Amino acid sequence: MMTITTAQASTCSPAELASRHRRLLADAVRAVAARTAFSAFTGREPSGPQGDEATALFSAQLETPLDLPGHIGVPTLQTDEVSPWTRLPLGVSYPRAEAPALIEHARQAQAPWSARTIDERAGICIEMIERMFAANVVLGLAAMHTTGQGRGMSRSGSGTNALDRGLEAVAAAWQVLSRVPTAASWEQTFGAELVALEKTYRIVPMGPALVVACASFPAWNVYPAVFANLMAGNPVIVKPHPSSVLQMALAVEIMRETLTDAGCDPDAVQLAVDSAAEPITSILATHPKVRIVDFTGSARYGAWVEEHARQARVYSETSGLNAVVLDSFTDTDAALRAVAGAISLFSAQMCTAPQNIYVPESGVVTPEGVLSADELEQGLIDAAAAIAESPRRAAAVLGAIQSERTIDEIADLTATLRARAHVLSEPRSWAAPEFPRARTSTPLIARVSLDDEDLFAHECFGPVVFLIRVPDARTALQRAAADAAAHGAITAFLYSTDEPLIDSAEEAFAAAGASLTINVTGAMPINFSAAFSDFHVSGLNPAGTATLTDDSFVTGRFRVVQSRRPLRPSHN
Amino acid sequence: MMTITTAQASTCSPAELASRHRRLLADAVRAVAARTAFSAFTGREPSGPQGDEATALFSAQLETPLDLPGHIGVPTLQTDEVSPWTRLPLGVSYPRAEAPALIEHARQAQAPWSARTIDERAGICIEMIERMFAANVVLGLAAMHTTGQGRGMSRSGSGTNALDRGLEAVAAAWQVLSRVPTAASWEQTFGAELVALEKTYRIVPMGPALVVACASFPAWNVYPAVFANLMAGNPVIVKPHPSSVLQMALAVEIMRETLTDAGCDPDAVQLAVDSAAEPITSILATHPKVRIVDFTGSARYGAWVEEHARQARVYSETSGLNAVVLDSFTDTDAALRAVAGAISLFSAQMCTAPQNIYVPESGVVTPEGVLSADELEQGLIDAAAAIAESPRRAAAVLGAIQSERTIDEIADLTATLRARAHVLSEPRSWAAPEFPRARTSTPLIARVSLDDEDLFAHECFGPVVFLIRVPDARTALQRAAADAAAHGAITAFLYSTDEPLIDSAEEAFAAAGASLTINVTGAMPINFSAAFSDFHVSGLNPAGTATLTDDSFVTGRFRVVQSRRPLRPSHN
Repeated sequence: MMTITTAQASTCSPAELASRHRRLLADAVRAVAARTAFSAFTGREPSGPQGDEATALFSAQLETPLDLPGHIGVPTLQTDEVSPWTRLPLGVSYPRAEAPALIEHARQAQAPWSARTIDERAGICIEMIERMFAANVVLGLAAMHTTGQGRGMSRSGSGTNALDRGLEAVAAAWQVLSRVPTAASWEQTFGAELVALEKTYRIVPMGPALVVACASFPAWNVYPAVFANLMAGNPVIVKPHPSSVLQMALAVEIMRETLTDAGCDPDAVQLAVDSAAEPITSILATHPKVRIVDFTGSARYGAWVEEHARQARVYSETSGLNAVVLDSFTDTDAALRAVAGAISLFSAQMCTAPQNIYVPESGVVTPEGVLSADELEQGLIDAAAAIAESPRRAAAVLGAIQSERTIDEIADLTATLRARAHVLSEPRSWAAPEFPRARTSTPLIARVSLDDEDLFAHECFGPVVFLIRVPDARTALQRAAADAAAHGAITAFLYSTDEPLIDSAEEAFAAAGASLTINVTGAMPINFSAAFSDFHVSGLNPAGTATLTDDSFVTGRFRVVQSRRPLRPSHN
Repeated sequence: MMTITTAQASTCSPAELASRHRRLLADAVRAVAARTAFSAFTGREPSGPQGDEATALFSAQLETPLDLPGHIGVPTLQTDEVSPWTRLPLGVSYPRAEAPALIEHARQAQAPWSARTIDERAGICIEMIERMFAANVVLGLAAMHTTGQGRGMSRSGSGTNALDRGLEAVAAAWQVLSRVPTAASWEQTFGAELVALEKTYRIVPMGPALVVACASFPAWNVYPAVFANLMAGNPVIVKPHPSSVLQMALAVEIMRETLTDAGCDPDAVQLAVDSAAEPITSILATHPKVRIVDFTGSARYGAWVEEHARQARVYSETSGLNAVVLDSFTDTDAALRAVAGAISLFSAQMCTAPQNIYVPESGVVTPEGVLSADELEQGLIDAAAAIAESPRRAAAVLGAIQSERTIDEIADLTATLRARAHVLSEPRSWAAPEFPRARTSTPLIARVSLDDEDLFAHECFGPVVFLIRVPDARTALQRAAADAAAHGAITAFLYSTDEPLIDSAEEAFAAAGASLTINVTGAMPINFSAAFSDFHVSGLNPAGTATLTDDSFVTGRFRVVQSRRPLRPSHN
């Protein structure tokens, strides 16, 4: 077994863990209630392995079976897992088990896990988060070589930010669960008789929960789902994408180790690994005993899961048509850099990346006068090219492309667009300094018209940008909001100095369920979503139902059952 | 139009209503958070018509079109509505409209309604509740002559208790909604740059909501659903059962009148009336624009709605197999009276009524020694007979049978049981003093064995009781809990002095999702469910998913969408 968390691993009772992490929990609960800025990791360095030590530990795991003590299953080589950076197979074997056995082990773990108090469960979950943070550099390398993310993002977006979203889910769940009173004394007069009852209220978990991860950014959705489930008392089966297992397997290893050290059954968190050739997700998702499914992945498969997993409550995040509406700029260069950054970041393999940028025929008002539609297009292309032209910067910002299929789809789309539309920037691969064989692509940027909705009115995964010519910004707004409502969107972006237009945009995107970012430029990527503060996925459009993190993300995972009896004297 | 609420009807702005009802809201919020005893109506008499005046107003509505000012639809005689007490058609005409028109009117009402603040919506909802309370006696007569309830129950269970459950939903929703912050200032450093954003969070309603009522106890489920929806900003279409319209139509009249008086669009609450011959529920429930369905009714149709209303979030309450486990008594007569009362109350046409009573072969321990199984059976039969033997008491407790079909089904079942089991008490009709033609029945009580699960393992609606012989109480407990989990149950009842058995029962019924009442005797009907305190329907078994009232009853009815932009100086 890798020893990636030696610094913190030690036996500790659930009550001790509750006590140890009480203050962090309280801070997180305050933040999640007020939606203010908060991170558990600001100004902290991971206490676990870093630098060469981390690299050595990561390399030692390659070509090696991953050991998950006590986990059922037969070690099986994961042939679908190939680094997007090196194009070499990772060669890791994971324990593989059949769905019924995993579910049975989950069911066995449920009663003792749900018998823990809410504070104890929170303490154990936060201990898991702290241990994952300690191992952040090693987990980041695993994220990097499965998702294709750059080194920085693999430690922040897939590391601390994802862990913060996990902690947010712990806090949100704690808040919801702790509001349910454990007992009440009740008195009411019936006729002349005073009836006095004592009532107890019990949190009952729904049952085994399945968490299906996507290939390109698994941690960000897996951690909130796992922790919301564990807080509610549900045992969890984490099912990574077959091409992107290692980071989640190491995360599960740390979670199980934490459970074991706390004297709990480690099967409260299990790993389900399958292959592209022999998938297991549908079997797990539709099993009668699986009661919760968190699904992140394609819209098509997500719809299948929602259609067929009728025995479960399904929380989903699939895909969306994120739009940029351009009306007027206060700082043209800053705005163009911001938009170019968002379409470049991790090569738009993020659910918050914009795809459809609306370009008004009438141009955009700037302090220097009107920028024509053509000038605006050229400005965006130049700003995107500036990011891609330095291989070092490209490696950090664009990262690699997770799946060969994305490269193929972009090639096919480019051919289609050449025949039908104006391709303004052809996708091209570029050589990353550290990994010359990396699977890479600059964005495909094409000009289309509103009539080309067969092209732009569905998600094209990866670095694909449509510059959609529209008469004016209001037309853009209407169209973008209508597409968000009909086809799904998580984010929307507006640049405008026109307050009535901003008001209209807030109305329209609120109704369509897309979170709106207005006039943001500068160092923060405009599609960055802040844990504790930004609600992510509204549930109002087809992009999904799993809102990070509102009450509804928690309330479907447990139920309350009561018992009542005459008030006993000892309780008076 | 009937003037059933003259005492309170007056023009009043939403802000004034919010202010007027602020204190009651605060009291209700406190009660719902602590689950303590509370009622808005203790010690109060309705200010509206009572006695002869109420009777005259009710009678004046019979054989007359109900006027709902501004409501779409063509007045149509409701031929399915026949009083279970007089067996005479009510002869009321209601406006009938097609589903698309109702939904379009709801959609028109949504934006202005959801633009009201949460406090204003609460003020208007509580004003509706107060006006319905003022009209409690007239609404009670309407409940009585549609459901068959006795006069007392029609004013309490279908009156104040149902209104309290409605107020509970207002308070629960207010609590959930008001926790979502409306805005936050957010700062985070990216590199050397401090990024400061202002964020706003907006409650967005899901869309038109359909509330489908049952025939025998509509108010109790309709009020919570209507008010949870209105609080979340959703316009509501109330769809009564075709044989039980009048009470809900009058309630909708009062709600619309309140909306109009507050300067709001009355179409935020509409009435959908259909007939048994031309039902409209399936069309409404599966319409793409209907986003919430609250369904109370049969398990079979409820399953159809859940299967087909895929565009909506469905909250359901269907049926269940409520059980009584008998182990030991401290007061034999009191226990027998309590159980007999529960099987007699409104002739078991309540979702909380027990059907399956487990009788241990070994008998039941009492202070006077062991009561044999045969003695126990006889005791129950005698206790039930004592209730039915006085026509006046029978009219008050048993009430009438809502549907002729229930009478037919009991007759069929009696024939089956005569051939297969031991019928201990044959159902017989009895003459109510005030209404000699009333449709009535004493309970059918039969002894069966555990092998007769084809008889007892599904709900037999109405006054049907199986005395199931079991070896001992623990066997009964296991079987009752297993049936609750598999077939659905809302309540369970236990009489025992054995604390380890009580602990086991609490565990088993909590896991099965049935609310447990232990050793309760006396003036309170043991299947009484207290607003603000008792959670009703757990969502853990097939009896339904609509829990009165927990957070999950509210959180599925709205979503939160955010907008963010650079912090403006004026906001510093």
